[in-house]
Order: sequence, then C-alpha cells, then structure tokens
Amino acid sequence: MAKYTLVCVRHGESEWNQKNLFCGWHDADLSTTGVEEAKNAGKMLKEKGYQFDIAYTSLLKRAIKTLYMVQEELDLHWIPVIRHWRLNERHYGALQGLNKSETAAKYGEAQVKIWRRSYDTPPPALEPTDPRWSANDRRYGQFDASVVPACECLKDTVARVLPYWHDIIVPTIKSGQRVVISAHGNSLRALVKYLKNIPDAEIPELNIPTGIPLVIEMDENMKYVKDYYLADEAEVKAAMERVANQGKAK
Amino acid sequence: MAKYTLVCVRHGESEWNQKNLFCGWHDADLSTTGVEEAKNAGKMLKEKGYQFDIAYTSLLKRAIKTLYMVQEELDLHWIPVIRHWRLNERHYGALQGLNKSETAAKYGEAQVKIWRRSYDTPPPALEPTDPRWSANDRRYGQFDASVVPACECLKDTVARVLPYWHDIIVPTIKSGQRVVISAHGNSLRALVKYLKNIPDAEIPELNIPTGIPLVIEMDENMKYVKDYYLADEAEVKAAMERVANQGKAK
Repeated sequence: MAKYTLVCVRHGESEWNQKNLFCGWHDADLSTTGVEEAKNAGKMLKEKGYQFDIAYTSLLKRAIKTLYMVQEELDLHWIPVIRHWRLNERHYGALQGLNKSETAAKYGEAQVKIWRRSYDTPPPALEPTDPRWSANDRRYGQFDASVVPACECLKDTVARVLPYWHDIIVPTIKSGQRVVISAHGNSLRALVKYLKNIPDAEIPELNIPTGIPLVIEMDENMKYVKDYYLADEAEVKAAMERVANQGKAK
Repeated sequence: MAKYTLVCVRHGESEWNQKNLFCGWHDADLSTTGVEEAKNAGKMLKEKGYQFDIAYTSLLKRAIKTLYMVQEELDLHWIPVIRHWRLNERHYGALQGLNKSETAAKYGEAQVKIWRRSYDTPPPALEPTDPRWSANDRRYGQFDASVVPACECLKDTVARVLPYWHDIIVPTIKSGQRVVISAHGNSLRALVKYLKNIPDAEIPELNIPTGIPLVIEMDENMKYVKDYYLADEAEVKAAMERVANQGKAK
C-alpha cells in the first residue's frame, strides 16, 4: 500500500527547444508556451487538491520558473524551495548550443542518434578552455572540477541524481513532508528509472511529457507502488508524442 | 572602513495598500504598481553591477515576489532563497484587514495614531478564536503559540527580527557571501534601527521607500559604517513622502 506520494513536474518548453538547440546546462528561459505549460501544471495540481510542504528544483531557470508558476497557482510562495545542481538537466557536453543539423553535419546522423538515445555513451566533453566550461559559471565554479560534469550520458545523470535523492529528498519525504520536484526531462527520467527499476535497454522509450504533473506513490520502505499523470490518457499520449518528436527534431 | 555590504529591498505596493487596509501578516499580493516597483529595484541593482550569492525573504508573497522580480532582472534565479517568518511584516494583530476609517471609528483617531507610530504600544491582539489567528495558517501552525505573535509593536518586531539577523544572516555575510534581503517596511526598519542605533524616539520618522534598494555597509565587526539608496536624492525623497502619506492614509 502506498504511504508516500511524490509529485514531479518537467519544465515547459524553453526558448532553446524552439530554436532546436541542444540545451543541457545552458540556462535557457521558458518560451511563452513553456510559461503556459507551467501554469497549466499548477492548475492541474490545484484542481486535484494537492498541497506541498517543500519543493526541490535545479539551478536552471526553466525549472525554477516552472516551479514558481506552480507555486503561484497553488498560492504556495512561502514553502521552502531548495535548488541543487544534481537536479539539473543532463549535461550535453560539447553539443550544448549546437542545433541538430549542425551536429549531424559535423558528426553524422548515426553518431548523434547514439548520443541522444544511448544509455551509456556520453556526448563529447567540454574542454576546460571552452567558454561553455561549467566552472566558468559562478554557480558551479565553487565545486571541484571532478564533481561537476563536462558531459553526461543518462547513466551519468542517474549516478549524480541518486545521491541527492537518497541523502536529501528521501529523508524529507520520510519525515512526512509533501514534496514536489520541478526538474528536467533527463533528471526526472533518471529518477523514474531508479524508482521503477526500468532496464537500461528500455529507458530510451520513456518520455516524460512537459507540464503534466507525474505522481509517484511509494510504500513505507520508499519502494515504488504506482505512478500516474494528472491528465487523461489522450492528453498524456499527445504530450508524450510532442516530446518524442521534439527529441527527433533535435 | 567598510568590509561588508548588505542590500535590502522593501517590497512594492500591495493590493491591500491600494485598498487602504492594515495588512501585517495577511498575505496580500503585489499590485500592478508593486510589480513595476520590484522590477525597477532589480534594474537599479543591475545598472550598478550588484551581484548576490544568497537571498533572504519573509513568508509573505509580496516580499517573495519582489525578490523574484529582482532575481529576474539580475538573471539570478539560481541563488539560494531562504524564507523565514522572522522577516515578516510587523504583525498588526486585530487591526489586520480593517481599513483606517473603520479603525478610527471603532477606536478613535488618537488611539490609532499611537498604534501606528508608537514604538512600544502594540495594537489589540488577535484571539485564538479569531479566524485570522496565525496558527490557523499552515505556515505558522507548526510553531508554538508562544513563539508566533498575536500582535506586535515595532519593539516586538525588533525583538523577533534580531535573532534571525544574529544567528543566520550575520554568519552568512561574514562567510563572504553577498546578501540581499527582500522584506517589509517594519522588519527592515527594525533592522536599520538596530544597525544604526536609532533612538526609540526617533524611529517614527524613519520611512524606508518601497522598491529602492538600500545599501548598508559594515566594518569587519559588522558595525554600521554608512548606508545609501540606489537612487538620486530627489527620487528617494519623493518615494519616502509617498510612503509617509500611505502611512497617514492608513
């Protein structure tokens, strides 16, 4: 029987989605559509009567702003909001800022598909001399270079999300606090993969739609019981297809 | 010589300012004017090149949203934001939600002036049976009733702001982090009174304008060196007069 409930929200469309660029840790803003998706996520939660005691999000404004829109709809500005880089999107390495056609032209379609879909092949790493090197950004410069990634495959993202899950979020949920996480396609896929024990070979098929709250129920040992989206099946399917197609268009 | 710099922002106009109601701990939203004031505060900080590492605010959305607008202008969504009730506005007790004319009719003009301006005479307290009783609000219900006020004079506000200042904010500033506080007319007056050692008799004359960042410089022992607003003198004077008149109109 489910004892604990966690709600996850994937941020809405960003300006870089629109421009068809690999985004990763680039701090792209929400597009106008993305803002509407975020507000809509808040409205769905409000309609179903969800309440939260604390929120977790990444260091990237598209997730932080999505959370803010959710807080606005729920009139929950006052709850603690904890930002952490371990909830960031997958680090897309040297691909960040390139668009799909540039990338395909440079590396070939087959290679790009592997970087996008493979569980354990990371994209090319950023070099420390690259202006996009994460330590050049004040928010990551305080960490040792060995901690902050220069590129990630999804397996790497799982490895850096899980310490935060186990050390910070799990104790909070177990203390009885109702948690909402506003994060990214791949940091949420990483979490869902772990919780649902999805095999590596099946994870490429998992698409989390943007702006539709995902509710995950867990038992007293924090083992997965069930999960569902706060929208009807047709709406979720349509949103998942949009996400899958966005992926293809990248 | 100044070693540390603190920036304080008083939230912009709220919807209850407009309606001429005593607000206190009521969670009024910013008015359209208040949102513009908040954005303007962010623009002033940006223009002068201010950067922050961490932000403190109250549990009231007019301060939290003002901070959010400042973060938006500075592109600093990612910094930690710590919310705490000790930075809330002065608790206006049983006057919360009343307007000035109702209050004057009920208690007399002279009495209302004392509640508004006296340093140490609190307004009538909320009763635990009152729907406005703070513990009925989920954000305060977790605290012992002896901790959360039922009404406050400014002296009471000073007494509850200072523990947070000494225990939390001072160590953060001393660690070298650049701090911004987004709070309220009276929680900021309480802080400024302490830092500038303003006598009780002179504090009624201190008005902090809304939406104009106040910079406070302190020496290595966190003693006050100087303070100034990020606007020219005429602008500050005009804003202070608007605030003083708002006060009178309450």
